[in-house]
Amino acid sequence: MLGSTHGTLTTDLRARVVACGEQPGPTVHGMAASEGDLDVSGRPLHAPVPELDRFFRPESVAVVGASDADGRPNTGITRQLIAWAERVGARLHPVHPSRTAVFGLPCVPSVADLPEPVDLAVLLVGDPLPVIEELAQAKVKFAVAFASGFAETGAEGAAAQRRLAAAVERSGLRLLGPNTNLNAFERFRDDLEGPAIALITQSGHQGRPVFTLQELGVRLSHWAPTGNEADLETADFISYFAGRPEVGAIACYVEGLKDGRSFLLAADRAARAGVPVVAVKVGRTETGARTAASHTGKLTGADQVVDAAMRQYGVIRVDGLDELQDTAALLARARKPQADGVVVYSISGGTGAHFADLATAAGLRLPPLPDAKRAELHQWIPEYLNVANPVDNGGHPVGDWRGRKIIDAILADPGVGVLICPITGPFPPMSDKLAQDLVDAAEETDKLVCVVWGSPVGTEEAYRTTLLGSSRVATFRTFGNCITAVRAYLDHHRFTTGYRSPFDEAPRTLSPSFRKAQALLRPGHRLSEHSAKQLLRAYGIRVPREQLVTSAAAAVRAAGLVGYPVVMKASAPQLAHKTELGLVKIGLTSASQVRDAYRELTDIARYEHADLDGILVCQMVERGVEMVVGVTQDELFGPTVTVGLGGVLVEVLQDAAVRVPPFGEDQARSMLAELRGRALLDGVRGGPPVDVDALVEVVLRVQRMALELGGDLSELDINPLMVLPRGQGAVALDALAVCR
Amino acid sequence: MLGSTHGTLTTDLRARVVACGEQPGPTVHGMAASEGDLDVSGRPLHAPVPELDRFFRPESVAVVGASDADGRPNTGITRQLIAWAERVGARLHPVHPSRTAVFGLPCVPSVADLPEPVDLAVLLVGDPLPVIEELAQAKVKFAVAFASGFAETGAEGAAAQRRLAAAVERSGLRLLGPNTNLNAFERFRDDLEGPAIALITQSGHQGRPVFTLQELGVRLSHWAPTGNEADLETADFISYFAGRPEVGAIACYVEGLKDGRSFLLAADRAARAGVPVVAVKVGRTETGARTAASHTGKLTGADQVVDAAMRQYGVIRVDGLDELQDTAALLARARKPQADGVVVYSISGGTGAHFADLATAAGLRLPPLPDAKRAELHQWIPEYLNVANPVDNGGHPVGDWRGRKIIDAILADPGVGVLICPITGPFPPMSDKLAQDLVDAAEETDKLVCVVWGSPVGTEEAYRTTLLGSSRVATFRTFGNCITAVRAYLDHHRFTTGYRSPFDEAPRTLSPSFRKAQALLRPGHRLSEHSAKQLLRAYGIRVPREQLVTSAAAAVRAAGLVGYPVVMKASAPQLAHKTELGLVKIGLTSASQVRDAYRELTDIARYEHADLDGILVCQMVERGVEMVVGVTQDELFGPTVTVGLGGVLVEVLQDAAVRVPPFGEDQARSMLAELRGRALLDGVRGGPPVDVDALVEVVLRVQRMALELGGDLSELDINPLMVLPRGQGAVALDALAVCR
Repeated sequence: MLGSTHGTLTTDLRARVVACGEQPGPTVHGMAASEGDLDVSGRPLHAPVPELDRFFRPESVAVVGASDADGRPNTGITRQLIAWAERVGARLHPVHPSRTAVFGLPCVPSVADLPEPVDLAVLLVGDPLPVIEELAQAKVKFAVAFASGFAETGAEGAAAQRRLAAAVERSGLRLLGPNTNLNAFERFRDDLEGPAIALITQSGHQGRPVFTLQELGVRLSHWAPTGNEADLETADFISYFAGRPEVGAIACYVEGLKDGRSFLLAADRAARAGVPVVAVKVGRTETGARTAASHTGKLTGADQVVDAAMRQYGVIRVDGLDELQDTAALLARARKPQADGVVVYSISGGTGAHFADLATAAGLRLPPLPDAKRAELHQWIPEYLNVANPVDNGGHPVGDWRGRKIIDAILADPGVGVLICPITGPFPPMSDKLAQDLVDAAEETDKLVCVVWGSPVGTEEAYRTTLLGSSRVATFRTFGNCITAVRAYLDHHRFTTGYRSPFDEAPRTLSPSFRKAQALLRPGHRLSEHSAKQLLRAYGIRVPREQLVTSAAAAVRAAGLVGYPVVMKASAPQLAHKTELGLVKIGLTSASQVRDAYRELTDIARYEHADLDGILVCQMVERGVEMVVGVTQDELFGPTVTVGLGGVLVEVLQDAAVRVPPFGEDQARSMLAELRGRALLDGVRGGPPVDVDALVEVVLRVQRMALELGGDLSELDINPLMVLPRGQGAVALDALAVCR
Repeated sequence: MLGSTHGTLTTDLRARVVACGEQPGPTVHGMAASEGDLDVSGRPLHAPVPELDRFFRPESVAVVGASDADGRPNTGITRQLIAWAERVGARLHPVHPSRTAVFGLPCVPSVADLPEPVDLAVLLVGDPLPVIEELAQAKVKFAVAFASGFAETGAEGAAAQRRLAAAVERSGLRLLGPNTNLNAFERFRDDLEGPAIALITQSGHQGRPVFTLQELGVRLSHWAPTGNEADLETADFISYFAGRPEVGAIACYVEGLKDGRSFLLAADRAARAGVPVVAVKVGRTETGARTAASHTGKLTGADQVVDAAMRQYGVIRVDGLDELQDTAALLARARKPQADGVVVYSISGGTGAHFADLATAAGLRLPPLPDAKRAELHQWIPEYLNVANPVDNGGHPVGDWRGRKIIDAILADPGVGVLICPITGPFPPMSDKLAQDLVDAAEETDKLVCVVWGSPVGTEEAYRTTLLGSSRVATFRTFGNCITAVRAYLDHHRFTTGYRSPFDEAPRTLSPSFRKAQALLRPGHRLSEHSAKQLLRAYGIRVPREQLVTSAAAAVRAAGLVGYPVVMKASAPQLAHKTELGLVKIGLTSASQVRDAYRELTDIARYEHADLDGILVCQMVERGVEMVVGVTQDELFGPTVTVGLGGVLVEVLQDAAVRVPPFGEDQARSMLAELRGRALLDGVRGGPPVDVDALVEVVLRVQRMALELGGDLSELDINPLMVLPRGQGAVALDALAVCR
């Protein structure tokens, strides 16, 4: 019986999901994700990983629209592609309707005439759409479309892009672009070793600084300029790079995301693989969001939600391209930390004080070195200098054999995971030797050695040759970027070490609550308070004892059943801000007060033209801390769950934390830790701590509701949720629910 | 009569100030500030400006402890000083007890034997104290002491430093140091023109990056390495540099301040002169404060207070040395802005979107260009590109004559004060021409032109030669530093344009409130609630009608006079958290309730061993917004005034703003604007806005009290101050006052 009910429900659910216009998530062409791969909201639990080896390293390439005519833009591009094909050992076939040769290579008039099935076709034509079908016929695996004029230009372009995407979907090939460029086919340095950065950008110019890191000795393995993402998107490349052995970190410049879920699944794959993803994501402000949309035609999403989603999956979000470079380079190359203690070592007490101040403010832990270690350091460092951490050597010891001894002694301390040496000024007699000692010491340890080269010039030998010549020392130009990167490094390893994928634990089947809840929904309407509370009860969230009544006599009877004192409220759909309208009466202690209140509430409701479904007679709940728990729909990520301070405060202070389902209890607890007013939960002025476990349970039950009801529940707002003293639970005193 | 009272009061006050051990502020040696130069707290209203011309450009110099013996540290220093004296045209006289010549220069055995009165004596001796008296005898104007081992080493060193400072004070000369270095006598580039940076540092290494800016073409005029500041301090150099015509901006690296007031007076002088002061100030964290103290032996102050004090006087606080360099360089050289609109111009839509996003988030204003201007730009930029702001030229137009036209057209718009062009990657065909066009355009405008050179390499010709070769273009390496500097530039000019010195308006004479208040103080004690409220009344701050009673019968009489309903509270010194102890009864509506409450309160007070001075019977005040206003003593700045959200919230959210007196009404209002919960003051959920004017008036009256009572009032805490709806005032419902 239960089984069959369950079967029916699942079918209902999927039908509903499709009816609501949601996509069942990314699918590999022609291969729908199997039923077991969907969560209860009908969205996929695993991301397909596209096989892109032949995209980045094709054996044969067609250039459609190739040219060698002077002054044509395609001529320069063709020349670069020929050079690139030679470097990577690919055979290149120019395609042009009216040429027989391009730069000496035999040219065929159309894709159909290609002498072999090619891996990759580069489309230099103004409209790639007509070519897609031909490419599919010719069994081409990948295409790149440079043409612009699609979603980035407005509604008409967006329609053209949808047509292109549909043609690609039918064809079975994978497309990069449109509105992309040559970045994937740049000249990468092949003389650099060790783990590399793989780069994904939605703007070629914005990826250039990371690419240029190769000139500073940092290895780059791939560059995916995703453009408008009609087919292949950022998430596809994250998934692919996360599985490549040469990739140590993935660096992304993102303006908008095509699909929230596929991004999270890709980030989840990277987190499982322990491959860090560092991202600049535009859209902190309206200006940024609007400008980004006009650039690649994608949605930026609500920034607070994007930010939370990234943190949930360990994606490291940074603001500047310089931070992107420095953080990605460090994370790609540094080994796993053996401890999270950071020691700051310098030739100046001032430098140490300044660095330690900023590092501590940013959350790095600078533990004092043990007494024995300090005594050891004082063998080489004068007694009056501070060696507790920061370690100030006063300058002179770096000039001789003591310099290396000090570094080795610090690195030998088991509590030390990171040694940072800020060198603010180039003093060749000191700084050159110091730089060399640091490089030598770094070669002999697995611990992380960082140097900040503070000179604004940057042409010094110690910097260019000694420091940048080492792949074991992480060299920065500013205190700030060093601190950002080291924090990301320690956070990343902490995160991946304890990582459990929320997708593994996401609910796949509907709970018994679903049917009860579904019966309460009224599509297109706001529910009355009473209905909204029934919805909460359906998911096991406690509400006050209450009865909905439609006469004064029934109100008195209800008050007797509920127990005095009672609260009475008008209940109607479309009714918010009841308190301000005088539609709430509290602390009623007698039948006569209840009768008076009934009359008064119905009078006001009539005056306000509220369509009453009755008057609620509710149990009066003792004092606790007022919180708010809610659900809103994000354009990118679907339903999101929010928890914050409740009551009047929620509006004034906007102190709330948000998460994108699915998430576990750990994330629900970390939401509370994010609140500025979290101390309220610990009890105020000697009051008892509140029932945080009950609050967490409500958040998780609301998540379950959000997942099961999906887009049908446009908005839910429990405000206030009264959280009682520890052990006494939490009660939803009021709720607002809007159905789609 | 009034006149004579006033005279007595002033005498009392100054006697009290001295008795409390406060210093009457910095004085020029032997010249006490005149009475008219003191504010009501007995602190100076004007900073003396030391005449330091002969310090930085002496005609004759003595080097005490000069040496040319191999292997002695003093030998290298002597050599550098000789070279420096030659460069600046000063006569140099070595002083050494046993040498007749040093590096070929005639050497005298002691200061007394100097052939001429010298401007400056550089002391290379281990203990400078014995030399000071000799220097004074020889009429030496300035001395520099390199010796370390003073306040930076602990209590013993601090005592030695106090002895040195006292000797200097007696001597009439001015001392730099101890624990300083050669930085003031470095080789400055003299081929650079235009306004310069003057540098002040409490650590030589920390000043090196700013000094090195000269290699990038930025002029530096002075470097004052202040060391332990036994005499000359950061404030002295700020005051001096603010009056030098060649100084465009003052850059400071500060670990601790010797005296808060003298720093503010110096900052005030710079603000009046329109000379920007940019500062790194260590001490954001405990770690930083502790480490800085062990470096130069100075106090860092409560960081929130330091931060507020700097903002009050327009000092631009930055975190990193890179920001110090970039911000000081921009502010030194840029002309006054003609408008505050910022236009972002780039060859990439992505770059523009990213930059605009970060700039807007940081508070820069990016107004859309007018339609006519957009049409003008579209003459040269394809129609499909966004030119509203950011302006995206798509790349190609920079390669020809159109590039310069576009820049000039943007700069010609009257709403544009700043043009920022981020160039993320070096593409010589485009970026070289773009850089040159920007440099050329900048030569012909007074508006600010900024470039961000995004390449991490920084050896490119366009960067090194074209951009750094221009003193009219401000070149940055990161988006973040450009945004920080431009924001500081616009903020600084806005600040100085409207600047009115609070010292001009600071009270100089005691108010009639003072005598009443003084009579209420009980040195060394916490006042009872009733006394604390009388203190508030003395300064015209409204408190509820209330009576202090010591019998139940008197309580009933008092309730009749105060008017029902009443609040009753236990009043005792040393009594805080009365609500938690059950020592507050609210909403009493009858004589019998008052009698019961009286009995209950005295019972609890007896149980709690509270030393009751009676029971307060108070008027019950209607609802408003609970705020807190208080006074605390800062170790550096003396009394400070705080305003924040009150009630339970003040403890949980710590949402408060602080200011250092003296400050005017504008600052009192800006305190409210800083509060995260400021919307509470505008009225919540349709409620009326509260009486902000009354709240501001209370803040100003509390400031007056803090200034007049000075250190005698260790702490004042009005919590809550109930701010009523607009026009109805504000009432101090409870207050705590602690006397020193």
